[in-house]
Amino acid sequence: MAVYTDVADEELSAFIDQYQIGRLLSFKGIAEGVENSNFLVHTQTGHFILTLYEKRVDPADLPFFLHLLNHLASKDISCPVPVPDKTGTLLGTLAERPAALVTFLDGMWVKRPKPVHCEQLGQTMARMHLAAADFDMRRANALDLAGWRPLFEKCADRADEVHPGLSDLVVRELDHLEAAWPDDLPRGIIHADLFPDNVFFLGEELSGLIDFYFACSDQLAYDIAICLNAWCFETDLSFNITKARALLNGYGKVRSLSRREYDSLPTLARGAALRFLLTRLYDWLSVPEGALVTPKDPMEYVKKLRFHQTVGTASAYGLSP
Amino acid sequence: MAVYTDVADEELSAFIDQYQIGRLLSFKGIAEGVENSNFLVHTQTGHFILTLYEKRVDPADLPFFLHLLNHLASKDISCPVPVPDKTGTLLGTLAERPAALVTFLDGMWVKRPKPVHCEQLGQTMARMHLAAADFDMRRANALDLAGWRPLFEKCADRADEVHPGLSDLVVRELDHLEAAWPDDLPRGIIHADLFPDNVFFLGEELSGLIDFYFACSDQLAYDIAICLNAWCFETDLSFNITKARALLNGYGKVRSLSRREYDSLPTLARGAALRFLLTRLYDWLSVPEGALVTPKDPMEYVKKLRFHQTVGTASAYGLSP
Repeated sequence: MAVYTDVADEELSAFIDQYQIGRLLSFKGIAEGVENSNFLVHTQTGHFILTLYEKRVDPADLPFFLHLLNHLASKDISCPVPVPDKTGTLLGTLAERPAALVTFLDGMWVKRPKPVHCEQLGQTMARMHLAAADFDMRRANALDLAGWRPLFEKCADRADEVHPGLSDLVVRELDHLEAAWPDDLPRGIIHADLFPDNVFFLGEELSGLIDFYFACSDQLAYDIAICLNAWCFETDLSFNITKARALLNGYGKVRSLSRREYDSLPTLARGAALRFLLTRLYDWLSVPEGALVTPKDPMEYVKKLRFHQTVGTASAYGLSP
Repeated sequence: MAVYTDVADEELSAFIDQYQIGRLLSFKGIAEGVENSNFLVHTQTGHFILTLYEKRVDPADLPFFLHLLNHLASKDISCPVPVPDKTGTLLGTLAERPAALVTFLDGMWVKRPKPVHCEQLGQTMARMHLAAADFDMRRANALDLAGWRPLFEKCADRADEVHPGLSDLVVRELDHLEAAWPDDLPRGIIHADLFPDNVFFLGEELSGLIDFYFACSDQLAYDIAICLNAWCFETDLSFNITKARALLNGYGKVRSLSRREYDSLPTLARGAALRFLLTRLYDWLSVPEGALVTPKDPMEYVKKLRFHQTVGTASAYGLSP
């Protein structure tokens, strides 16, 4: 949870006046999100989310994110839709930060996803991949294979403080992935952070995707691999093959996986586990003593990585090609 | 800001099902309030605030607060209105805490109030005092004159850590107030915490009062004295007589102050300053090292108290009787 930035009344009113959304009626900080400050805005014309982008988001990336949301919404993917100001601009400035106003999306994230949620997620992810096929902007994945070793080198000397032998585990995994990583799979725009808290449901119906601030150009199947990690482990870190099957089955109903994509899933899943292991390790070791935010435990992804290392073929994830 | 309690999906849905407000569509923690956990709830029939009462609120007091809101709303005082569940009950249980659902109130609190806001506040406070006159429940003020010395005694030995001479200042003020405090002024229900963040405006129009969790039976003019402290000092702690005059003028348009009440204002304002000085001092000295919440600085109220000590008669607050 986080609201980092305090907004002065007059400045807020002046900002809202730049939009054709009627008079400001209410403004409340939301205790969600750790990267940006989010506010619920009620005006005479409806409810909106106002996001102030804090320092972890590169302002140069914001046009990509906002235009992507616009593009996806135009193709009936349910997501927050940026509201243009009176001059047609999507990105504004408030409290000396880049700021954007998006439509409010109903739905709640599911803390304990069931197979039916995984099936819905698979379908919607595939629809999103197809919908973004003709989106004409690109953004490199800063956290792809090429980025993992440099990230690890920033914290390699302290990795064993978190867990004895962790440094060795990561080095061997990097060696393996640098040799085995596919680079010829179908590419496109991926969300790259489709964790349960970024997927809204109304009951068992998926109502929308949010938080596209890691979206980038990459191999599409890598997005699936991230979800296998984020959705298909139980809280005791056992792997739930029923959920994995539902996820892949849902995806396949909308977009068929090629044989190459299917066969690459275990490698992609190892990579996805390592990517979240590394960012969590970095955050864990970087957080100052007494900080307000507790970083997420990197050991969760060490255990997930170890599971994927035992997977011989993609059939272990519950589907035949 | 605070959301202390995490609520499980299924438990939340079951809770909302107890009310006739339609299906749950959205649920977001609000980064406001330091005493309780507040959530914005959107259902098919509208927007609501769900409050989980954390340990600083005595559950035995909750019926008083909720019935008071109901009573005030029935008399056209704009405030959050408790929503009864299907059995007509105002107070429920969620996540092992007392919980209540109230209507959503538009408006925003004003960080830098102008005289026009003080005038509106005065009028609405007087309307609230009159509207509560026939409310039949009572609640003692736990932080009245009788409560201040015992509260101070809990932190007396460390008061001078905050400011040299503070202990002596408080003891002398307690002696003075115990001798000078009036006890024959008109009584009724007071809000007792009408700080700017508990008063919503739409532009220059007051749109509602919130956070009645200090409301109690006391001398009505003491509520005015709290507002003189909370609304009429500038950020440099100079006293703005124009705001004080606007506050008293607004109040007087709705309910006339008696001569006794008027003459007692300097004493009541000293007491109000001491009350907030003491609770802030206690919180300041009680907060654990490295706590998430920064307590409010007691020195602000030391300075306000010193101002009131220089006030000879109520005319210093800008009005003639």
